[in-house]
Amino acid sequence: MAMPGMAYFEGRYVPIQDAKLSILEPAITKSDIVFDVVSTWDRVFFRLEDHLDRFENSYKHVKIKPPVSRDEMRTISAELVDRSGLDNSCVYMCATRGLYAGGAAFGDPRNAVNGFYAYVVPYYWVIPKEHAETGGHLWIASVRRAPSEAINQKVKNFNRMDLTAGQFEALEHGADAPILLSTTGKLTEGPGFNVWIVRGKKLLTPGKDLLEGVTRKTVFELAQESGFEPVATELTADDLLEAKEVFISSTAGGVLPITRVNDQAVGNGAPGITTGQLQKRYWEKRKRGWHGTPVDSLLVSRREKVPAE
Amino acid sequence: MAMPGMAYFEGRYVPIQDAKLSILEPAITKSDIVFDVVSTWDRVFFRLEDHLDRFENSYKHVKIKPPVSRDEMRTISAELVDRSGLDNSCVYMCATRGLYAGGAAFGDPRNAVNGFYAYVVPYYWVIPKEHAETGGHLWIASVRRAPSEAINQKVKNFNRMDLTAGQFEALEHGADAPILLSTTGKLTEGPGFNVWIVRGKKLLTPGKDLLEGVTRKTVFELAQESGFEPVATELTADDLLEAKEVFISSTAGGVLPITRVNDQAVGNGAPGITTGQLQKRYWEKRKRGWHGTPVDSLLVSRREKVPAE
Repeated sequence: MAMPGMAYFEGRYVPIQDAKLSILEPAITKSDIVFDVVSTWDRVFFRLEDHLDRFENSYKHVKIKPPVSRDEMRTISAELVDRSGLDNSCVYMCATRGLYAGGAAFGDPRNAVNGFYAYVVPYYWVIPKEHAETGGHLWIASVRRAPSEAINQKVKNFNRMDLTAGQFEALEHGADAPILLSTTGKLTEGPGFNVWIVRGKKLLTPGKDLLEGVTRKTVFELAQESGFEPVATELTADDLLEAKEVFISSTAGGVLPITRVNDQAVGNGAPGITTGQLQKRYWEKRKRGWHGTPVDSLLVSRREKVPAE
Repeated sequence: MAMPGMAYFEGRYVPIQDAKLSILEPAITKSDIVFDVVSTWDRVFFRLEDHLDRFENSYKHVKIKPPVSRDEMRTISAELVDRSGLDNSCVYMCATRGLYAGGAAFGDPRNAVNGFYAYVVPYYWVIPKEHAETGGHLWIASVRRAPSEAINQKVKNFNRMDLTAGQFEALEHGADAPILLSTTGKLTEGPGFNVWIVRGKKLLTPGKDLLEGVTRKTVFELAQESGFEPVATELTADDLLEAKEVFISSTAGGVLPITRVNDQAVGNGAPGITTGQLQKRYWEKRKRGWHGTPVDSLLVSRREKVPAE
C-alpha cells in the first residue's frame, strides 16, 4: 500500500517512501538537521511566513545554507500539498548539513554540501484525536528537557532523546504524552506542543528551554482578543498539578484540552470552558482565512496561467 | 568513485552508498537510534566484547530490541571488515527504533519495528592525523554538553547538536576540536573523545555527563600497569588551562597528545612524555593482540571450514 504523502527530494517530487538519506548523512550521525512544520486546512496554509521565519532562524543558527530560496520553499510546500491531494496536511521542511567534501562521512562541517528536502503527510493530532476531543492525559516525566545552553531549543531540531524517553514514561503510565521539566525543575514542553495553565483571566505558559511554538504565539493573540492575559513565566510541576484548567497548543491539532495530569483529574475532569472558547475561535478564524495563504495562490502552474500585464 | 566501505543493511551486505534510511525514520525525525563503534587494526578487533556490552546497554536503555543476536553482530562486523578489504577500520553498529506499525511516521514507539544496521569505514583519527602526531589543539566551547538527566550520555547516541555547535566554535578559532563544559561548569568531553590531564603520577579525567569511552577504560588499565593513578573526578576549564600535560582518548586514534588549549600552549608546547609512553604502550599491546579478536576467527566462511569433531 502506498503511504499517503509526497516528498520533494534531491530536486524532484517523489512518492514519500522513495525519499531516503544515506546512513552516512550527518542528519543521522549527528542529528545535524533542522526543520519546521506548517499545516494546511482545506488547502490553506496557516501562518506560513511565521514558519518560514522560524525555519530561517533555525538554519542560520546552525550555519546551514539551504540550496533553495525562501520563495522556492513556498512553491515547493504548495506543490507538495497539491500533488499529494491532501487538503488537510502537515508539511515538513528540513535543512541538512549534508555529506562532507567528496561525499565523505567525516570532515570539516564548514565544507559540507548543505541540503534541503520537504514532505507532506496527512494532518495529524499531537495526541490521539479521540483524546484531543474529550481531554488528553499528560505525564510529568522524570527525564529532564535538555537546556538551551546545550541544545538551543528555539532552534527546531530532532535531538529528541529526552522527549522520547519521556514519551515511554507517559505511555507506560497510560498517559497520552509527557511534559518535561527543565534541569532546574521548571515546566518546559512536551514532544511537539507547549503547555498552558488557565488561572482566572491569566493564561500561563513556560518561557524557557522550549520551542516557541507558532500555535503558542497564536494563543497569545487569541487570548488578548478574548480579554485574557497571556503570560510566559516560570512554572513548576506543582503549578500544573494544582491547575483548575490546562490545555496544550500545537501545529498538530491547534488548542487541545488536558483533563488529567499524572494520576489526577484536572478541575472536574472535563475540558475547560476557556480552552473550548480558544479552540472554537482558533478554528473559526482559521476557516475564515486568518493568517492564511491559499495553496492555490502559490502553485507555479496556476501562477503561470495569470496573464502578464 | 565508489566510497570505501561496506554496509550490512536490511539483512544484506551492500556498498555503503546504497544503504539509505527513509526520511520518515525516527532515527532522523527524533534521533531515535543508538550506536557503537569498534576498531580493527591489521584485521584484529580491539575490545569487541566491551563495545558489544556498551551497545547492549545503550539499546536496552532506550528500549530498542535489535532484530539480530549478539553473535550475529560479531559475525556481521567481521564479514564487513573482510568484504571491505579494510585491514584498519572502524565498524559502526546501529540500533534503530524503526517505523511504526504499518510503516507510519507517527505512532506508539512501543509498536515500532526496531532495526539494526552496521557499516565499516577506513580507520580514522578523531583529530586530523598530522595534528594527532605533533599535538592537537582543543577549544573550550561556550556551548554546554547536554546533561545526563536529559540526554543520558552513557548511552551512545547521535543527539549531537551541542557537540556540533562546539565544533564550529573550535574550527572558527583555528582549533581541531572542542571540549565542552557541563551546565554546572565541569569538563565533560569532546565529539568522540575523552580528555585527560597529567598531574604528577595522577591521570585525571572527568566522570560525569559523558560517554565512558572504551579507550578511556583502556587508559585506566594502561595507567595502572605503568605506575600511574587514574582518577575520574570533577575538573574545570581552569584545570585544563593550567595543566602541564593533556591528552585525549578515542577509539579513533587511541591516545593522542594535546599541545594547545584555547590561545595558549600546554606545558612547553610539545607532546608530553607520559602521553608518549601511554601511546607507545597502547599500540604495542594492541599489535601483540591485547584484548584482540581476529576478524578471521569470526568469519562464517572460515568457521565453516573447521571440521566438526
